[in-house]
Amino acid sequence: MRIALDIMGGDFAPGEIIKGLKLALSDFPDVQKFLLVGDSEQVADVLIEHDLSVSDPRLEIIHASQVVGMDDASSVAVRRKKNSSIAVAAKLISEEKADAVVSAGHTGAAVASMIVTNRMLPGIDRPGIAGVFPAPDGPFIMLDVGANVDSKPMHLAQYGILGEAYSKVVLRVKNPKIGLLSIGTEDKKGNDLTREAYQIMAKLPINFVGNVEGNDLFGNQVDVVVCDGFVGNTVLKSCEGLAKAISKILKSSLKKSAVRRAGALLSKNAFKELKELTDHEEYGGAPLLGTKGICIIAHGSSSSKAIRNAIRVAREMVKNQINEKISDKISGIDWTATGNKA
Amino acid sequence: MRIALDIMGGDFAPGEIIKGLKLALSDFPDVQKFLLVGDSEQVADVLIEHDLSVSDPRLEIIHASQVVGMDDASSVAVRRKKNSSIAVAAKLISEEKADAVVSAGHTGAAVASMIVTNRMLPGIDRPGIAGVFPAPDGPFIMLDVGANVDSKPMHLAQYGILGEAYSKVVLRVKNPKIGLLSIGTEDKKGNDLTREAYQIMAKLPINFVGNVEGNDLFGNQVDVVVCDGFVGNTVLKSCEGLAKAISKILKSSLKKSAVRRAGALLSKNAFKELKELTDHEEYGGAPLLGTKGICIIAHGSSSSKAIRNAIRVAREMVKNQINEKISDKISGIDWTATGNKA
Repeated sequence: MRIALDIMGGDFAPGEIIKGLKLALSDFPDVQKFLLVGDSEQVADVLIEHDLSVSDPRLEIIHASQVVGMDDASSVAVRRKKNSSIAVAAKLISEEKADAVVSAGHTGAAVASMIVTNRMLPGIDRPGIAGVFPAPDGPFIMLDVGANVDSKPMHLAQYGILGEAYSKVVLRVKNPKIGLLSIGTEDKKGNDLTREAYQIMAKLPINFVGNVEGNDLFGNQVDVVVCDGFVGNTVLKSCEGLAKAISKILKSSLKKSAVRRAGALLSKNAFKELKELTDHEEYGGAPLLGTKGICIIAHGSSSSKAIRNAIRVAREMVKNQINEKISDKISGIDWTATGNKA
Repeated sequence: MRIALDIMGGDFAPGEIIKGLKLALSDFPDVQKFLLVGDSEQVADVLIEHDLSVSDPRLEIIHASQVVGMDDASSVAVRRKKNSSIAVAAKLISEEKADAVVSAGHTGAAVASMIVTNRMLPGIDRPGIAGVFPAPDGPFIMLDVGANVDSKPMHLAQYGILGEAYSKVVLRVKNPKIGLLSIGTEDKKGNDLTREAYQIMAKLPINFVGNVEGNDLFGNQVDVVVCDGFVGNTVLKSCEGLAKAISKILKSSLKKSAVRRAGALLSKNAFKELKELTDHEEYGGAPLLGTKGICIIAHGSSSSKAIRNAIRVAREMVKNQINEKISDKISGIDWTATGNKA
């Protein structure tokens, strides 16, 4: 197994990326090779800085002369920066030198590079990014959270297949419940997009449980919820913002008196548990599903722990042959029977 | 000032509605008349049950023989149940017998009744429901949260005008910052709808601050955020669900040991403060903006306190002539200059 790591992408690159690599080297001995993509001199320097050896047989530096900045437009990044670390990393997959890519850099550039270089899996029209959300009885995934806006009904239906595979392979759910994010539980509720998607999904060989509303998401009613990328991205970011605001309000409120401070001190393990449960770093970034090859998009602010976990997820997806499973399932579907052509 | 109250709508109707009325009767002496719409016998019984007098000159029972059930489709409710409590209440506005309607019943039926009976304000194409969200430095509003899905760019632009008026009149913000909910801050980011809406909004005489992402909402970056009703409803409900899940996780975690239980006890005032800050009952329901007449849609699970606060908000909107202010502003806009016709 060979995993390409974008050393240049992320707010804390290259330091935290290399630290995450170091954790992964010891935790995942079955990864035979890490392909470290970035400015070769800089990568070599930072390896040494972190007591790693450039001559370690499990490490190989792959030079990339450019970096996609967070302000670059995705389209421009892909057209003009053909030697960026993410473009070079994606190319390693098409050249069959790597099985997976992990990047904490520019999301749009990662998506565009994967599509342009590696193409879609047969039968899948658009890729989706699967966001992992914490919930009291275990995480659920939502896709798409940002790869594809202005989706068509067929895209949402295909996300059902992609999400099911991810839920089985990485989250170990046996028969994942798949829901469609909408604004009412009846099949006629929603907008034009979801009403049409509902009809297709109801005929797919998946455990489709119908429409799910936002307030039921965190009640563990589904394992996978599909939606348009604009909606998913907005929900994901709003939830992140709300969780931060609640924690901020609570913290300042707990500091207001000596009694409360004492109380906070006594109950600090409870807060730690909450933090762990809602810690996105635990889930190892968001996989891009639907393209050939595996790509994990880690959060821009990823720490070493998040990078280590993103590598863990990539490894599990490769090991469990998620793309082969998706292709098998897709090829068995008679799309005309769903009322749509593929 | 005369306020019509839908006595039959809501999970805890008619009891909690009447209890809320009782609070409002003493708190808002400037409301001359409450028009109590519902089954007249039942309303009279429940008034007496709560020590209110049917012959109180500030109360008048208006008979409505039907009730819209929560499972009724909005279109059916409006066509077939012309004598439902919400339909009769909405009609009181067109008959100039009431200035505002407050209902905790079926949202779709309230929206449809207001549109059909009272029509839109001149220059406004679609109504929007404004949801009030708590944030550390004060609440912000989001509209639309469910009146209008599959919106056109012009609808979002008009929500900017409606939201500005509400923010000024009810939340007392002097020069409200208006944002457009999107998935990136640059004007080219978003979907087809938001990119077009951006161009119109940038030319309106409002304090438009551009795109806002979900994670910035709770950072008090804007006072008003506009979006399509499907997106807004999904974000609103997801946030409600997340807040509940966090509180559930924290509660169970705080009960796990005697030390934590002691800590929780000491810091209970902090939790109370958090609850108050995030308590949707404080904000008194969501106003439907853009139709003639005032309509406040209270949460289905409204308690007496929520009903009392919904009446408070209705009262402020009437007193401050919000619709006159909206009409004045709208009539002054040269829509052709925004690149669109009205």
